[in-house]
Amino acid sequence: MVRFLILYPEPSDTEAFENHYREVHIPLAKKLPGLRRYSLSRNSVPIRGADPYYLVAELDWDSMEDINKAFQSPEGRASAEDVKNLERLSPGMHSMVYELKEIV
Amino acid sequence: MVRFLILYPEPSDTEAFENHYREVHIPLAKKLPGLRRYSLSRNSVPIRGADPYYLVAELDWDSMEDINKAFQSPEGRASAEDVKNLERLSPGMHSMVYELKEIV
Repeated sequence: MVRFLILYPEPSDTEAFENHYREVHIPLAKKLPGLRRYSLSRNSVPIRGADPYYLVAELDWDSMEDINKAFQSPEGRASAEDVKNLERLSPGMHSMVYELKEIV
Repeated sequence: MVRFLILYPEPSDTEAFENHYREVHIPLAKKLPGLRRYSLSRNSVPIRGADPYYLVAELDWDSMEDINKAFQSPEGRASAEDVKNLERLSPGMHSMVYELKEIV
């Protein structure tokens, strides 16, 4: 499984961020081809060395090939374009993609 | 589901880190009470704003109550104690706990 993890620091304007995320970004992201799971967390707790994050989002695909297809699709490009708005509202946001191998 | 996410930057000594992680840390972490899943990724790709991480580890529990019990158990204390060794080998590592709500 391949995971796209997005970490959003506390927004400069929480209400504007929430409105944009809910009204614009979630509907765009839900259309991503091949998306298997989309989870949000609003209660992350830093354990060691980490900054507290306001929102953690995880989007899962079956394979690296599938996520690449999703990113290159029109829906993927629209979603990536919209991330620029989220980045303005949550400066310092960062994101990464990784493939998971279960050991337990 | 509650996830414990650990992000390890490139180690100062990769071989020492790998040896310690494999020989000491994984066996300790596998003993954590209530652990449902333990996944590793060695191929994370930064997408936006993120540093590249050498290793991403995810450990999952059913609930916040279960992970708290695991952290407070003797196995949890032994594992946390060992993280100090990993932090020396991978300076800048950070970790967080969050509860996930699926929206897709």
